[in-house]
Amino acid sequence: MAGNSFGDIFKISTFGESHGKAIGVIIDGCPSLIDIDEDFIQSELDKRKPGQSKITTQRKESDTAQILSGVFEGKSTGTPIAIVIPNEDQRSKDYSHIQDKFRPSHADYTYQMKYGVRDYRGGGRSSARETAARVAAGAIAKLFLKQRGIEIFAHVSGVGKLEAPNLDSNNLQDLLERREQNIVRCADPASAAEMVTFIDEVRKNGDTVGGRISCIIRNVPVGLGEPVFDKLHADLAKAMMSINAVHGFEYGSGFAGSEMFGSEHNDIFVNQQEQVKTLTNFSGGIQGGISNGMDITFKTAFKPVATIMRDQATINEEGESTTISGKGRHDPCVVPRAVIIVEAMAALVIADHLLKHEAYHNA
Amino acid sequence: MAGNSFGDIFKISTFGESHGKAIGVIIDGCPSLIDIDEDFIQSELDKRKPGQSKITTQRKESDTAQILSGVFEGKSTGTPIAIVIPNEDQRSKDYSHIQDKFRPSHADYTYQMKYGVRDYRGGGRSSARETAARVAAGAIAKLFLKQRGIEIFAHVSGVGKLEAPNLDSNNLQDLLERREQNIVRCADPASAAEMVTFIDEVRKNGDTVGGRISCIIRNVPVGLGEPVFDKLHADLAKAMMSINAVHGFEYGSGFAGSEMFGSEHNDIFVNQQEQVKTLTNFSGGIQGGISNGMDITFKTAFKPVATIMRDQATINEEGESTTISGKGRHDPCVVPRAVIIVEAMAALVIADHLLKHEAYHNA
Amino acid sequence: MAGNSFGDIFKISTFGESHGKAIGVIIDGCPSLIDIDEDFIQSELDKRKPGQSKITTQRKESDTAQILSGVFEGKSTGTPIAIVIPNEDQRSKDYSHIQDKFRPSHADYTYQMKYGVRDYRGGGRSSARETAARVAAGAIAKLFLKQRGIEIFAHVSGVGKLEAPNLDSNNLQDLLERREQNIVRCADPASAAEMVTFIDEVRKNGDTVGGRISCIIRNVPVGLGEPVFDKLHADLAKAMMSINAVHGFEYGSGFAGSEMFGSEHNDIFVNQQEQVKTLTNFSGGIQGGISNGMDITFKTAFKPVATIMRDQATINEEGESTTISGKGRHDPCVVPRAVIIVEAMAALVIADHLLKHEAYHNA
Amino acid sequence: MAGNSFGDIFKISTFGESHGKAIGVIIDGCPSLIDIDEDFIQSELDKRKPGQSKITTQRKESDTAQILSGVFEGKSTGTPIAIVIPNEDQRSKDYSHIQDKFRPSHADYTYQMKYGVRDYRGGGRSSARETAARVAAGAIAKLFLKQRGIEIFAHVSGVGKLEAPNLDSNNLQDLLERREQNIVRCADPASAAEMVTFIDEVRKNGDTVGGRISCIIRNVPVGLGEPVFDKLHADLAKAMMSINAVHGFEYGSGFAGSEMFGSEHNDIFVNQQEQVKTLTNFSGGIQGGISNGMDITFKTAFKPVATIMRDQATINEEGESTTISGKGRHDPCVVPRAVIIVEAMAALVIADHLLKHEAYHNA
Repeated sequence: MAGNSFGDIFKISTFGESHGKAIGVIIDGCPSLIDIDEDFIQSELDKRKPGQSKITTQRKESDTAQILSGVFEGKSTGTPIAIVIPNEDQRSKDYSHIQDKFRPSHADYTYQMKYGVRDYRGGGRSSARETAARVAAGAIAKLFLKQRGIEIFAHVSGVGKLEAPNLDSNNLQDLLERREQNIVRCADPASAAEMVTFIDEVRKNGDTVGGRISCIIRNVPVGLGEPVFDKLHADLAKAMMSINAVHGFEYGSGFAGSEMFGSEHNDIFVNQQEQVKTLTNFSGGIQGGISNGMDITFKTAFKPVATIMRDQATINEEGESTTISGKGRHDPCVVPRAVIIVEAMAALVIADHLLKHEAYHNA
Repeated sequence: MAGNSFGDIFKISTFGESHGKAIGVIIDGCPSLIDIDEDFIQSELDKRKPGQSKITTQRKESDTAQILSGVFEGKSTGTPIAIVIPNEDQRSKDYSHIQDKFRPSHADYTYQMKYGVRDYRGGGRSSARETAARVAAGAIAKLFLKQRGIEIFAHVSGVGKLEAPNLDSNNLQDLLERREQNIVRCADPASAAEMVTFIDEVRKNGDTVGGRISCIIRNVPVGLGEPVFDKLHADLAKAMMSINAVHGFEYGSGFAGSEMFGSEHNDIFVNQQEQVKTLTNFSGGIQGGISNGMDITFKTAFKPVATIMRDQATINEEGESTTISGKGRHDPCVVPRAVIIVEAMAALVIADHLLKHEAYHNA
Repeated sequence: MAGNSFGDIFKISTFGESHGKAIGVIIDGCPSLIDIDEDFIQSELDKRKPGQSKITTQRKESDTAQILSGVFEGKSTGTPIAIVIPNEDQRSKDYSHIQDKFRPSHADYTYQMKYGVRDYRGGGRSSARETAARVAAGAIAKLFLKQRGIEIFAHVSGVGKLEAPNLDSNNLQDLLERREQNIVRCADPASAAEMVTFIDEVRKNGDTVGGRISCIIRNVPVGLGEPVFDKLHADLAKAMMSINAVHGFEYGSGFAGSEMFGSEHNDIFVNQQEQVKTLTNFSGGIQGGISNGMDITFKTAFKPVATIMRDQATINEEGESTTISGKGRHDPCVVPRAVIIVEAMAALVIADHLLKHEAYHNA
Repeated sequence: MAGNSFGDIFKISTFGESHGKAIGVIIDGCPSLIDIDEDFIQSELDKRKPGQSKITTQRKESDTAQILSGVFEGKSTGTPIAIVIPNEDQRSKDYSHIQDKFRPSHADYTYQMKYGVRDYRGGGRSSARETAARVAAGAIAKLFLKQRGIEIFAHVSGVGKLEAPNLDSNNLQDLLERREQNIVRCADPASAAEMVTFIDEVRKNGDTVGGRISCIIRNVPVGLGEPVFDKLHADLAKAMMSINAVHGFEYGSGFAGSEMFGSEHNDIFVNQQEQVKTLTNFSGGIQGGISNGMDITFKTAFKPVATIMRDQATINEEGESTTISGKGRHDPCVVPRAVIIVEAMAALVIADHLLKHEAYHNA
């Protein structure tokens, strides 16, 4: 109800603010006897953490995950897995310059109006720090999906007006390696280089810029997703739109598909070595809301980060005009760190729908 | 869990297939003492029903809503409102030509694999007929929101590569009237004329085409939406993506916003006659997942209808190659009838978040 | 949220008031390919319907179930099964004598205060008529459980201070037959005869009396139930306490168990022909909230029906003292008709937990 | 779904096993601006913690609650309140004597069968240690209810065959003080003395005994509870039955009421100084599932603790006969420590229904 949980069977509940003692997550509904590799969880968190490179915020947080429950002798027990990530780097700064001002395109104003109170030292629950908890939970989901052979790969496919060409490989492991070889997390090396240069320039201008992340999910069994409200792509859309700064979502042919004719867009079924496939994949691996065994593909659009290193006009809590000045070290572009969040949320959606499907399928 | 319900507090559950006795919906959680105007409900259904014009399917169904419960002396009682819409026009046709074939880009294949059974006489729950139940429920939500002064307006903003210009009026009632003066439901008369001609041409070619619907929600109080997973726009995204044929969703600046700089994109707060407003509205009325009082704006992309009046290659249940031929009368473009579905789903999201917000707000 | 739904995976949602057009239920989450025997559903409803015998209300309703969706060629399709039961016998009576009075120990007063409106022609949703919808849904659950070999048997074990002896048979089919041979639905013939005489006497006195129903569930696999809040017996308790007039629930040793010593109460595990059994069953087939394969046993207590054929003091909506006089034909004791409701709710709990367990178990 | 959460709007999710690093709880949905008194939370935990007196287990755990999030400057912020209670006293004992044996009337066997794995060092989630998390959450609920003037009082009303007389006072504060003056937590001093003597004797015999707890909730507004499945007493029943060892629940007249006549049992409405009251309260403050403003009263029955200090026959994981010997220090009777758990769960039910009711009531 208060929207801090996600999923029905494989369900997560996150907690914590950027300036409290810790953030964390409960993963409830992970089947028992899944191998829980703590190093993998940490390596996922490391891909999201601040201070990774010159194009991310320089703030330092080690983001160390601590498992409090639900794992016994390296395996899940079927009971809630609680993970806590202590907050560090909470210097007792002076916040008086922003305490009663509403930062433009932040959640300060809406928070104040909704709750009648807000922790002015940070964004509260709207801080992107909350997503670290999602990444930890997503890592557990990935470990579960791995046992089923399901792979998830996301990368930065666009920054500002720069757009990477379509991927030239079908091998998600190769693409993953290529992606990790650059700091912007784009699997196309040439585009990656351009993007890095561009973001660095934006950063030097005290500005920020938006971007796009594309995702592929492979080896999803046929049958995941429910036909009406809980269509697989509807739940992916909600998952992605729930990530801070996301303003758009499309799957398969997406917005471009709405310009096409049916005769172009229909995916023709064929029998390839006793497997049902489609010749094209404008459906993005989902038909009638249910996975059809083809690759699931989608894209998300991130708006530019709201905190810029420039003076901006705004109002304060009394409604008086004032000015706010950027301070501290913030991300000039959010997508390099958000790639792993997109993967985490995708993993959570697939894990939940997998269990949901099997609940009925085995009946 | 099986995904036939939507909403938490203002919750609907739909049922029924295109070829059963009836479809319908339970609206559970509508507050008591709301005026239930049955004529309004019917007028909403009439905007969705087939056979309206030359650019929709010629199939005839009167789609008459019958309220079975939850209303007493013209007012809601606070108990479940059940609405049933009998299925008509179920001629005992010969379905043998499609009984064991998988229609391209339909849900036949995924249904068969998911459930091990499907009603081959229609699309089962994946039939767009299910959306009539949503429209009836949406009408109830609109009646509730009307008592709060909240207005919802959607129209067709694009068909194929045709795109209507930005709306030139701020008066939603005016726009609504303009929209209803043409059969494509676009509030820009010149674009509407072009769209009608284009769709009619597509229809004559035995083809179909996609389109786009834009929506504005006005007078939403500040504070609706939850900051983490149940962001207001995340729930709008899920609602829209759950509508048949929708492949994309964006709100506020959307995909275009991901190409912008923060310095352009930030919405500056100002005090206008003791009301907090923003100079621009790239945030689409939602900041940190919570409504800020500005207009909520979003757009959805619909793929072309899968049923085309042409022969297409496919396979049958045995995996053998075969051909399927379009028959019957189908929509060449789904957006004119979908406008009212978009409004219905938007109304349901806002009604649910309104009650959710007030549950805590009054505490 | 508004509490008209029950279950998570095998979920039902009921609607309808005693004086509306119809009552009904959606069963959402029934697996596909279950044989749906409509005659069985009707025979279950016939066990609950009014007018069965001299010790039930003489009101006549045929309670004919109509399936609107979710069944194709005699089998469930995995989509929502909607069942409607039209209301009959709604004579346009004169209700002016009770319109603004609060009947003692009825829900009139609490309804008026909660909703600000109530349909004074009947009890609204608090009418026991709502339970017909539960019986129809329970029949579907029983058909599902039957395919798994799970049996449910309830009977009247007490009326007023009369208490039937412990059952002398282990064969649930035999007991069922014995139960159906008398109008009070007690499987002990001698007790049944006493109960019938007693209830008839109570009826002649214009009074009503309470009673108790005991239930056995057999062949439940080991592992159903969740260890913390959703213990199997906790969900059974909620299910039973949600039935009109139920004031108490106990399972296994129940209240008597709270008077025992651990050394008496512990159920000793033994290996009987490679099956784990316990020598006693004070645990009522559930340990740590999870079924252990032994018979699940519980008992429910029903208060006397509130409507009596005598004058009673009360107040009206203005708070003025007044008198209310019993009219019409009401049940002198609710348990004979409630036996089938207890079974229905038990079936729903077991069906839901079975699917829940399998969702994880198969992972 | 996996049943580690309770409540819909005021919702808690617990985690942790007795032998992991910590247990804890997230309280999600507590309104903002509630005073969060950490000393009160600790004082509640102290009433549940082991080692309090000679009639409880001598195991020592300080049960210190740490708030990680959701509280700012002493007030709730409306975001999830996470509380962690580290596990102490986890000596690396030798568990080899029970590692593969199923303790009688414990959850060892059902756990092993359900999950295929269990932490043999303790009861996993079935350990009563989990209830410490409930007490912490219940303390938050009580702080919220206190702002509304709602009071909750429970005490031990029976141990074995000993039964305390009805309470002789209407002042819950007085009763609370009297209850805390003895180690068995019974508000009747004479009965308390007998109970203490009796439990101590049972303990010396290496045995355990069951008991009963009665609860009163005062100043609940009229209108809480939903009329069908989520009746206020149905949710109280589920809450109580979810507490370890509870085998029975009754409210108002309870099982005794099922022996009464309607003419005795009906609660007559009267107008007392412009307040609607009933002359008797067999309804236990709830009519039609909805609170009527009178005191809410209920009773729960606890079976005897399963761990006894005697040798018992059982089987091991291979199904072989074996013997298990009681070790360690366990509670001879669970009710003195369970009083605070009953109050906590009651507070959670009332808080959730209060918010639920207001969600609609304010519409």
